[in-house]
This record gives sequence, C-alpha cells and structure tokens, in this order.
Amino acid sequence: MSAEFDLIRAITADLPKSDKVTLGVGDDAAALRFDGDAVVSTDMMVENVHFKQAWSSAHDIGRKAVAVNVSDIEAMGAVPTAVVVALAVPRDLERAWIIEFSAGVREECDRAGVSLVGGDMSRSEVIVACVTALGDVASRRPVTRAGARAGDVVAVVGKLGWAGAGFAALSRGFRSPKDVVDEARCPEVPYGQGVVASDAGATSMMDISDGLVQDLGHIAELSGVAIDIDAATLEVSEPMARVGAATGKAPLTFVLGGGEDHALAATFPDADDVPEGWRVIGRVQEGSGVTVDGEEPEVTGWDHFA
Amino acid sequence: MSAEFDLIRAITADLPKSDKVTLGVGDDAAALRFDGDAVVSTDMMVENVHFKQAWSSAHDIGRKAVAVNVSDIEAMGAVPTAVVVALAVPRDLERAWIIEFSAGVREECDRAGVSLVGGDMSRSEVIVACVTALGDVASRRPVTRAGARAGDVVAVVGKLGWAGAGFAALSRGFRSPKDVVDEARCPEVPYGQGVVASDAGATSMMDISDGLVQDLGHIAELSGVAIDIDAATLEVSEPMARVGAATGKAPLTFVLGGGEDHALAATFPDADDVPEGWRVIGRVQEGSGVTVDGEEPEVTGWDHFA
Repeated sequence: MSAEFDLIRAITADLPKSDKVTLGVGDDAAALRFDGDAVVSTDMMVENVHFKQAWSSAHDIGRKAVAVNVSDIEAMGAVPTAVVVALAVPRDLERAWIIEFSAGVREECDRAGVSLVGGDMSRSEVIVACVTALGDVASRRPVTRAGARAGDVVAVVGKLGWAGAGFAALSRGFRSPKDVVDEARCPEVPYGQGVVASDAGATSMMDISDGLVQDLGHIAELSGVAIDIDAATLEVSEPMARVGAATGKAPLTFVLGGGEDHALAATFPDADDVPEGWRVIGRVQEGSGVTVDGEEPEVTGWDHFA
Repeated sequence: MSAEFDLIRAITADLPKSDKVTLGVGDDAAALRFDGDAVVSTDMMVENVHFKQAWSSAHDIGRKAVAVNVSDIEAMGAVPTAVVVALAVPRDLERAWIIEFSAGVREECDRAGVSLVGGDMSRSEVIVACVTALGDVASRRPVTRAGARAGDVVAVVGKLGWAGAGFAALSRGFRSPKDVVDEARCPEVPYGQGVVASDAGATSMMDISDGLVQDLGHIAELSGVAIDIDAATLEVSEPMARVGAATGKAPLTFVLGGGEDHALAATFPDADDVPEGWRVIGRVQEGSGVTVDGEEPEVTGWDHFA
C-alpha cells in the first residue's frame, strides 16, 4: 500500500465515533445523522499567515484548526458533532509533524465533543489546514447575527484580548507571559456555551475572531441596531497589562481589537436572562454602529485583504 | 467596509438557495435541512500540485474544485445539496481572478444542483481551494465501498482516461486534443447517476479519481473480493489514441491508471440491474486484488506521498 494511505491509516486508527456518525472515515464520504437542522462552517489556516512553525507546535496547530471552526458551530447555538480536516504539507516536512498535528486534531475533537469523520491529504509549498465543522441545532433554531433588538443586553463568555496580547508578545520575540501566548497558539473555546445561550433565549450570537468591536459591528449591521460597550466591564488581565507595558500598546486595544480568542458574544432580552459564566459588557440601542462609552473607538479588526 | 468583506459580498451577491438551505451565507455558519442521513466529503486543491495557472483558467479551477467534491457525494448514492468553499490566494493576484474563480464555482454548483452556502477567504503564497460537499441520502442507505460480492458485475458511467490523456498532453506543452485537455481542466462528472445506481441496487460504489485499477482496488479490499476487468470493454477514444501516439504511451494506460475523470464505478448483483448509460467492464470474484483479463496490470495510480 502507498505511503499516503499508510500515513492516513496511522492517523485514523481507532478513531472514536459518536452515535451521530453512521459511517466514519474510509469511504468516499462519511455519513451523519442530524436530529434538527445541520449547521456547517469552514476555515482555512495557512502557514505564515495564520500561524508560524516557530511560534506553534504541530500539536497546537492541529488543536487550533479544530477549535476555530467548532467555535462557529457554537456561535449558532448548535451542538457540534463532526469535523473533516484537509491538510497540505511540504514534501520535506517530517512525518512526525503530521502525526503530532493529527494528535492535536484528535485532542481538540475530544474537548469539543466532535467526531473526526473525514479528510484529505496532499502537497503544498507551505502548510495549509482546512477544517469544516458540522453541528446539530436539534429542536432549536439557529441563533443568527440578525436578531438583536434595542434594549437587549450584550454579554460574552470566554477570553477577550488574550490571544491578541499573545501575538503581540510573540511578534516581538517574547515567549511569555505563558497564559496569553498559549491562548494565541490555541484559543480556549467555551465549548457548550452556544447551546446554553440559545436555551437562555439569546436573540443574536457570534464568535469573536476578528476583534470585539469589528465582530459586534456585524451583529449591529445585520440586526439594524447600535451597540454600546461599557469599557468599565472589560477586564484587562495582569499578563495583558504586562504585554501592553512591554510593547507600548494600551492593553484595552487587545480587548477591543484583538481577535482569535473565539469568545462567544450574544444578546439577551434582559440582564436576568444572561447565563452563569457570561459577563454583560454593553447594551443594544436604536441606531447603527458600535461605540465604547458612547464614543467611536479607535480600533480595527483583522482584514486579510487590506 | 473592508476590502475582504467587499469582495466576499461581490462573490456571494444573489446566490440561488434551494429549499434544503434554511440559512445561507453571511453568518457564523449556514443551516441545512436533511431528509435522511447527511454525507460529507472534503478535498483541497493546491496550485502547481493539482492545477497550474498556465494550464487552467480561474473559471476552470473554480468549476473543478466543486466537481471533484460533489463527485464523492454522488459516489455514496446521495443527492448533492450544498458546498462550502475556502480559498487562499497570493497578495498580488488580481481581483479579477477571484471573481472568475467564483463564477466557475457558481456555474458548477448550478450543474450539480447544489447551493453554495459558505466560505472563507485568506492569503497564501500559492492558490489553495478547499471545498467541502454535503449530500442527502434521503430514504436510501449510503452505498459504500464495502458491499461488493463475488458474482456481481462491475460497471462505470462517465469518462475514463480522458483527463489522464489531457494531463499527458498538457505536460508535453500541447493544448490539444481539446476534448481530453478540457476534461483535465474540469472533469465532466455524471451528476445524478449516484442516486440512479443506488436505486438500481448497487452493492458498492466509488468515484474514479486516482485511476481505475487503484480505485477498484479499494472496493476489492474493503469488500474482501477480487475484481477482474475485461480489457475489451474499455474504450480507447480517438483523441486518447492521438495523445498516446504523440507521447509514446500505450493509450490503455490512461484508461487503467489515469485519474481525475471522476467517473462512477459500481457493482451490481446482475447485468440486468445495470442502469442505462452505464457500461459493464468486469466481474467481482472470490479472492483479492484487481486483474485485467486475469493478469496483474502494470499501472499505478496517483500518490501524493510517493
């Protein structure tokens, strides 16, 4: 048997399979059973654009590829169920890198409660990983970005600004503070909270991947409302403050503009609806755009095409 | 609004949406409704590995990215319903290339009867396209590679060897014969025939992407049977013969070893079960491996990791 099939066999040996998976890896396609509507999202991660081998281990990159995609499924208020993973690597990359990447994929699948059901492997000049994640809204409806109403409160769960501070540290040649650098290497996605928010009556939801202000801007635009963030509610953690001091950046810019933490942001009709573990950070109002304490903030998010 | 969102808006304007799609592009994830089990498959196409800009237009590459993935859905005997497309391109690639690629994606989605429901766009040194396709088996069961039984007949629908001959011509600097070169640029997938085969009682099925002998080897292995191909049933088309003469290759090697035509191969209990338009090319027997007229063939398929 060829080297390609041999490697794929090593990676996919003894894969756990949930009862949602009616046919796992090894055929032209996998088969899945959904109780309600299925949700699907895809994201590509490219070496030296989304990650650097000097900053992240193969294991980190495998974990992150799954995490950032499952985060989009959480953001719909769905139960994440499965992922497929396509990977392209340079010809001279060691086989051990691919095995470690795959171990990271499997570890994050375990954390997220999803099954790895398929993939593809090929060659490229740089490492490229593309993950497509699937989820089941079951008896619920998908929570979109378009349902926020004036009077709702805005709440978040998960970290904000940690990954941004971590990237700022890494790009200046630091390998610490560990907490923020680890978050840049692989975000700690608040798994399970998407369904919690949906059941609590969230009117809109999304994950924060491009920066808090930019991403809340999508909810504001699609819902036809304005959002005001209360700066006093935003936490600047101690490691974030240290990175700010070391890099000369205001730590709050990590919180407002730093992406890739994959926190969840949602709107709820009333502060009493906000689930345990979520923090209220603002209000939905009539109008348009996103403000911080009533003022237009001076932060921008991530734009691959700027 | 940023250049990235502006471009995505241009690409996704007025997308057609089937009634299987309950939420289209523009949110964290799309939402789909399935009548039966869902099938899912993913494939990545990398510049200078799977295609060359000198050989294929942006439109061809967009079409092919969809075609090769939907082919896997057909191979399960499912109705193709939706695709998501992730694209990474170099910073200096013209915007027109991306618009043309997207037009190709949309054209092939129309041909295949699937909805484009999501995507991702980012930067890379070379062009990388990753498509994930979804299908609905509805009231059927997925047709796997594992159900062939001794006594079944082997049949195919679609082209065999045309793309292989096309690549052989292109790699020698020719731009003709047009029919085989076009097939190399974008395969003509026999859309709809997966369900036809399933309804006709196919016991196993797959699409031919790595070469007839190699791919039938997967059915043989997973079904625990042997397959013998009757060489007299294989058509060597006139353009294929011309490429053989020009390149010094036996034309039958294109048919037996050339991949990327994405024909469908299936096994049926009896010749009378074989649907119209399919050609019987061999028999399933006790044993293991694939033979041609009882002999082991001297062809190999495609291995990215050889």
